[in-house]
Amino acid sequence: MNSGTGSNPAVGDVRPATSDAKEAKLSALIGALSARLDQGALLMGDDVGDGYRGDATDDRGPRPALVLRPRDTADVSLILSTCNDLGQPLVIQGGRTGLSGGARPREGEVSLSLERMTRLENVDLRAGTLVVEAGVTMQSVQEAAEEAGFLFGVDIGARGSCTVGGNIATNAGGIRVLRYGMYRAQVLGLETVLPDGSVLSSLKGLPKDNSGYDLNQCFIGSEGTLGVVTKACLRLHPLPPLQVNALCSLPSLAAAQALLARLRQELGPLLSAFEVIFPEVYAGVATGGFATPPLPVGAGLYALVEIQGQDESENHERFAATLMSAVEAGLVDDVVVSQSPRDYRGLWALREACSAFIFSMDRMVGFDVSIPLARMQDFLTDAAVRLLAIDSSARPYVFGHLGDGNLHYMVRTDRYEDIADAVFDVVAETGGAISAEHGIGLDKKKWLPLVRSASEIAAMRRMKRAFDPNFILNPGRVFDMETEAAGKAPR
Amino acid sequence: MNSGTGSNPAVGDVRPATSDAKEAKLSALIGALSARLDQGALLMGDDVGDGYRGDATDDRGPRPALVLRPRDTADVSLILSTCNDLGQPLVIQGGRTGLSGGARPREGEVSLSLERMTRLENVDLRAGTLVVEAGVTMQSVQEAAEEAGFLFGVDIGARGSCTVGGNIATNAGGIRVLRYGMYRAQVLGLETVLPDGSVLSSLKGLPKDNSGYDLNQCFIGSEGTLGVVTKACLRLHPLPPLQVNALCSLPSLAAAQALLARLRQELGPLLSAFEVIFPEVYAGVATGGFATPPLPVGAGLYALVEIQGQDESENHERFAATLMSAVEAGLVDDVVVSQSPRDYRGLWALREACSAFIFSMDRMVGFDVSIPLARMQDFLTDAAVRLLAIDSSARPYVFGHLGDGNLHYMVRTDRYEDIADAVFDVVAETGGAISAEHGIGLDKKKWLPLVRSASEIAAMRRMKRAFDPNFILNPGRVFDMETEAAGKAPR
Repeated sequence: MNSGTGSNPAVGDVRPATSDAKEAKLSALIGALSARLDQGALLMGDDVGDGYRGDATDDRGPRPALVLRPRDTADVSLILSTCNDLGQPLVIQGGRTGLSGGARPREGEVSLSLERMTRLENVDLRAGTLVVEAGVTMQSVQEAAEEAGFLFGVDIGARGSCTVGGNIATNAGGIRVLRYGMYRAQVLGLETVLPDGSVLSSLKGLPKDNSGYDLNQCFIGSEGTLGVVTKACLRLHPLPPLQVNALCSLPSLAAAQALLARLRQELGPLLSAFEVIFPEVYAGVATGGFATPPLPVGAGLYALVEIQGQDESENHERFAATLMSAVEAGLVDDVVVSQSPRDYRGLWALREACSAFIFSMDRMVGFDVSIPLARMQDFLTDAAVRLLAIDSSARPYVFGHLGDGNLHYMVRTDRYEDIADAVFDVVAETGGAISAEHGIGLDKKKWLPLVRSASEIAAMRRMKRAFDPNFILNPGRVFDMETEAAGKAPR
Repeated sequence: MNSGTGSNPAVGDVRPATSDAKEAKLSALIGALSARLDQGALLMGDDVGDGYRGDATDDRGPRPALVLRPRDTADVSLILSTCNDLGQPLVIQGGRTGLSGGARPREGEVSLSLERMTRLENVDLRAGTLVVEAGVTMQSVQEAAEEAGFLFGVDIGARGSCTVGGNIATNAGGIRVLRYGMYRAQVLGLETVLPDGSVLSSLKGLPKDNSGYDLNQCFIGSEGTLGVVTKACLRLHPLPPLQVNALCSLPSLAAAQALLARLRQELGPLLSAFEVIFPEVYAGVATGGFATPPLPVGAGLYALVEIQGQDESENHERFAATLMSAVEAGLVDDVVVSQSPRDYRGLWALREACSAFIFSMDRMVGFDVSIPLARMQDFLTDAAVRLLAIDSSARPYVFGHLGDGNLHYMVRTDRYEDIADAVFDVVAETGGAISAEHGIGLDKKKWLPLVRSASEIAAMRRMKRAFDPNFILNPGRVFDMETEAAGKAPR
């Protein structure tokens, strides 16, 4: 078995290497690659900009001594097999918009950036699919789909700079998961390069294919630790002629949950988004001038809901009538339904202004958690108590995707570690997930054992060893392999 | 690395063991288990019925010397760890309705049947989820969902006897994949036991959870070769108040494809099934008395289409109007829209009668293939030519799930192997899949290299080694490990 650990004592970067040995390795790498890649493929020295030092979090890692920028899959294959032979660890970088430090370099890592792999094929109109390279932005995918009369099912705030490869590595979510599923559900095929340079190509775009293991599933959501995705065949949906949204003010979270159940039941697949904004965030957006909300501050909760339908008048009427009946039932205090594309965009701009408001404040730490709907109030109550016990000035700012049980739970504090310990403890107690859609990266792996058992983490390590036996791909992201490197039993 | 091959020379069943050694192993197994499991857990001798010798294919394997029937996850864990320690291979059996021989025992295998694990929890009404054990039938899941006001998204003909565990192992498909996705899309969580007895439990039911690898994805569709699923948390959908179907006669496959595109565009997510019946099958059903179809024989093709909607009158009218406009456009020759639940059931009975007609004929061999829509006519034309060249009496009988590109392609012939070589060659040439929804099992692995590259199969073997290093779970299904067992390099 080519597992590496027995046969190659210099595995990964876990054994301290001397500075000389590192430089020799880097020289060997540059020597091997510069002759076989084009001039733009290697950035070194001052050409390595600050952007390569991190992601959308505040922290910066060391400047990589080398940034490798392949043009195509063959380049990626060459780079990976060369690095694998040398035991050279890589940080894989896409749009670097992550929020868990996954793309932040660590000491000794060379960057592999997919930024030059930005080709899109034409939309296959009959199949409703689109094949793109990993460096294509989400917005380019959305626009190509729309031009061909289709909708791409995932949308997130970072759409303009996040890339397909990173979206797949983190199994991106966003605002329409309750209708279209996570990014995983958009992937009909992948092309992936393994550390040994072998290329797994599965781009047929077949909706049904049970011919052997669906290897693609391993790479979706594994944060670049098992292989490097170079291309994807993405599933598109017919473009819905109608998109309408509405902003509701509600008395409470319980009312919002009852509204969600009612809309699901009465609107079925028309319902495409159900977002919530808690009053502290809504007030901050309004008073800070980040947006001009159409309903006054002071409600117990705000919900932004959306339908996507086929029949303009029928579906619009049905949506309005369903919301009105929710007002009559006392679930909703007030509601504004968009009457024009301008209204529609305005309400979504209000939702995006939440992030702008949050990012405008210093000392803000964020948690991206999933909580079972039945336990969400318990989570909020218990977490608030725990926060105050640690920092009497700590107050939560909350918004997110209630339709999927996903809250962005932000806290303004100087005591990040203690607050994180407390919030994640309560997440675990209420049966939730410490990362709903942002992944684990470097920054959350400390807390992974709160929500994943020792057996599960052991199984993750088995997969890592199977696909990346020399630990060159995003090492140390999601979980550590230290126990093995220290010579202990693998389980 | 606990990969077994180095440390345990008696791996799997690939080295010929003496009869004595096999019997000693079996005695040791029975001794270890009988003291710790209840009396109903071990079947031996005459208590092992013929049913345990196979699946829904005609072939029968040897009668297993022992059938193990755990009551719960702890029993499964004990059974697997004991077999793993002894190197005792197992065939994993659910409802034994498979069509690829995956559940057919091989010489020396003991059966692990999940038939006594049939508990269902109550439906979680707020989350819309249901937790069940692996031995629960699909029909029980469907009925429990409906009683609680929900729909389960997958339906196949074997619903009365196929089980959740087998459905997950084969990533079942069926008639509503174009609306709800494959079985994979219904799985929100799994509990799985690995060969070493460790239990991976992930039954939180969270729609968004990116906290580490989604290990569940590895077990879905891997045909019981990586772990034994003991429980699943299944996603349910709001029960649609309206279900209407229609039977169309059409001039050609091209017309059916145009109709599919039109219905997708105009009906969006209302469209829940798009099945086709080719004229030879339709005529056989009608003249053989398997059903009484409402449209005359003789058309170029028949399509059975269905919508599931929220608003009875609106959606019904919309469906009828869309089909009428397709008649006016010349895509459809004639159409019957169901006007009552009885009509509705009658049309689905017609579709199910296709299987009854097919199974009534001797010498019938079946292929379950996916073909890209753009190449489907090429596939049909080329395959027909290839068939006739081999057997001048061979004629294809075709029906299936056009909405997903999945055809059940049946041929009446005595020359199975030659015909299979030819059909699968054409599948590969047209970019298709040799198994759309039935899996590979024992019976199709010979042809797997036609559609999956050597790198892909090598990656599957890496996963097998990582999860089942002693090759005790369904060995020889999907692919063989011989090269490794013979001491060759693992790649």
